[in-house]
Amino acid sequence: MQTMNTPQLLKGFRDFYPLEMAFRNWLYRQFKSIAESFGFEEYEGPMLETLDLYAAKSGEELVKKQAFTLTDKSGKILALRPEMTPTLARMVSKKAGSLVFPIKWFSFGPRFRYETPQRGRGREFFQCDVDILGLENPEVDAEVISVAAKMYQSLGLSPTEVRIKINDRKYIREKLELIGAGDEKMTAIFKVIDKKSKVPDVVFDKMLGQEGLNPTQTKQLKNILQDKQGYVNSEWLSKILSLVQTMGVGEFVEFDPTIVRGLDYYTRTVFEGWDIKGEFRSIWGGGRYDNLTEEIGGRQRIPGVGFAMGDMVLEEILKANGKYPKLETIKTKVLVTVFDPDFYQSSLKVTNNLRKAGINAEVYLEPEAKLDKQLKYADRKGIPYVVIIGPEEAAKNVVTLKNMKEKTQKIISIEELPSHVP
Amino acid sequence: MQTMNTPQLLKGFRDFYPLEMAFRNWLYRQFKSIAESFGFEEYEGPMLETLDLYAAKSGEELVKKQAFTLTDKSGKILALRPEMTPTLARMVSKKAGSLVFPIKWFSFGPRFRYETPQRGRGREFFQCDVDILGLENPEVDAEVISVAAKMYQSLGLSPTEVRIKINDRKYIREKLELIGAGDEKMTAIFKVIDKKSKVPDVVFDKMLGQEGLNPTQTKQLKNILQDKQGYVNSEWLSKILSLVQTMGVGEFVEFDPTIVRGLDYYTRTVFEGWDIKGEFRSIWGGGRYDNLTEEIGGRQRIPGVGFAMGDMVLEEILKANGKYPKLETIKTKVLVTVFDPDFYQSSLKVTNNLRKAGINAEVYLEPEAKLDKQLKYADRKGIPYVVIIGPEEAAKNVVTLKNMKEKTQKIISIEELPSHVP
Repeated sequence: MQTMNTPQLLKGFRDFYPLEMAFRNWLYRQFKSIAESFGFEEYEGPMLETLDLYAAKSGEELVKKQAFTLTDKSGKILALRPEMTPTLARMVSKKAGSLVFPIKWFSFGPRFRYETPQRGRGREFFQCDVDILGLENPEVDAEVISVAAKMYQSLGLSPTEVRIKINDRKYIREKLELIGAGDEKMTAIFKVIDKKSKVPDVVFDKMLGQEGLNPTQTKQLKNILQDKQGYVNSEWLSKILSLVQTMGVGEFVEFDPTIVRGLDYYTRTVFEGWDIKGEFRSIWGGGRYDNLTEEIGGRQRIPGVGFAMGDMVLEEILKANGKYPKLETIKTKVLVTVFDPDFYQSSLKVTNNLRKAGINAEVYLEPEAKLDKQLKYADRKGIPYVVIIGPEEAAKNVVTLKNMKEKTQKIISIEELPSHVP
Repeated sequence: MQTMNTPQLLKGFRDFYPLEMAFRNWLYRQFKSIAESFGFEEYEGPMLETLDLYAAKSGEELVKKQAFTLTDKSGKILALRPEMTPTLARMVSKKAGSLVFPIKWFSFGPRFRYETPQRGRGREFFQCDVDILGLENPEVDAEVISVAAKMYQSLGLSPTEVRIKINDRKYIREKLELIGAGDEKMTAIFKVIDKKSKVPDVVFDKMLGQEGLNPTQTKQLKNILQDKQGYVNSEWLSKILSLVQTMGVGEFVEFDPTIVRGLDYYTRTVFEGWDIKGEFRSIWGGGRYDNLTEEIGGRQRIPGVGFAMGDMVLEEILKANGKYPKLETIKTKVLVTVFDPDFYQSSLKVTNNLRKAGINAEVYLEPEAKLDKQLKYADRKGIPYVVIIGPEEAAKNVVTLKNMKEKTQKIISIEELPSHVP
């Protein structure tokens, strides 16, 4: 009997039944296909890392509040990876001497964050990470942003539904210097700017005041953050915006000076995916991290730029926009039924021959089952063809092939069966 | 500077650089292709479960000694999944009312065991799990064993290299009853039998003595374990062995009465993969678990049978037998070089058009790089074609297409370029 103690799925985690798994696989295939079309190679890392790897620069919230941690037998604190970039930086640092630069890598796998589950946000989720390491020129940032836009397209999403907002932390840093806020306050001010879209205007002003900006500076900063044409004075941003136009994805990309991102390791370009049609909110992010390999203790500085796109938010957006794909979970083309237990071997042989001909086929595994039950199984599973071999068929070395959709059937020789299944 | 404190990959864990990732993907594709040819659907579960899920029946060693555990904020003990079957039983129990039986599912993903890393064994490894739930007849066991054998074949392994040894715990239980050891000692005696191949004969005798067998019983039991023809008296085992013959994989499968498996939840058929040519050892396992859904607290009894095949041992066996596959990590067909920064936009356009024609293409991302460096990149990456667009080409609206392998080149119009890349 089931009791209160029956082990349950943990809160914020997911079971992927075949239909959910088919969606995850579909998403992965889209990501992989676009990444590979740009020449990115797939990599993966371990699910567990030392907590120290993130302590360096992932940002306090991610590390202190949201990490799932455990202590190993030597007392070392380990963390289930909350994100992939530190692992990537560690891997690239380690083999920098033998890798071909620029490195263009992508990955798709689980990430873990101990936060309150809500729609589009879980404690275990999947992200596609796309990164280029080894170069510092804006062409690289434009390529990474183009990959993200092409991924939108391959999921069926358009610029009326989703966007990519870009900014340059260096551009904002320079502006802050001009208004006299370019000192040690800067990191704190970045964190306030990152919260701008989540708090009312008066709260935003107050938060800036708490970080030491006087009313004049606050007003100046807000002007900077409202200037959607500011990028024209930035060669870096202008270049990126021009190149994404050439790539044919310019309509997905816009400059937004309020985008600064929460992760501490971003040094220059930062960008975010936005849901325009739905709830108008940030859905994924990325940026340039030119010092990360050194910050995690690597021997040399290897600049990089990349993004991570999560599965749960995208699923919500696809559903909200009527773009959720039609999925099938089963690849079986033919169900070979079993007339009675004595015929199981005959049915098994026919099934095996279909498979040898490259046709996915199942034999019905319960030899005593009535034919009705077997046909119902094919129907519920959506298997398009059913083969019947009874005493009459067996005597003549033929089978009955039923087309389940068209509700037709024909008698054909066992040898010719594979060629009758399209 | 790198210090002693630089975060390192954890012991027993793996970084999958592109070449290792290509192997993992290749293995997954073989597993998936065979499983789908039999009509299995893919599923996945969470990486974390409550420890209680395993406490029920996974066996003391797996739970108490080898589980990576952590405590959540409510004090509940969680475990990184050491195996998949309890998750599967939980998932199937939960939705038993709406699922179509028999359930035929497979999965491929990480498992975690805190044990001493050695060749072919890590703390994070990947397993392909294949299971059928809902039926208790031996045809089902024969199908699952056939899937394993077909997976061997698809990896290129033959019966001279690997085998599947099968047994029936019920058969052994009945034999133990006949020699007067069929009481509460049985579970303990099974554990001793499971160690038979790992200990010298005298130690084996002593262990049986410690479990209460007298010298006569020990002798009788050893006779049972040596009788390789014993299956002829078992209708169950005879049926399975006959059906795998029909499936054309009989040469992979043999009866071995010493195979009992370590997991507590197996009720009937048990089977193991063996490396014949190499070190002659157990490489993976499976069996029938007819009571597991109840044992983990499910409402109803759902019989099942399945196996889990791990990536690390298989990799060793493929290498030892010269069957490790030839792998490529990069899918790029064409590298479009950049003559100088002014030509970047032209090169980018050509690259984008190649991709639109379905050809995986890269533009060289460093516009200042010398052509030599760009060609060297293509060479080191194994990119088969290179496109050059200089001032002369641009003026005539043509490109130079180099075949890197044949060291030939031709000049073609930009429009015709995609059709010249095979």
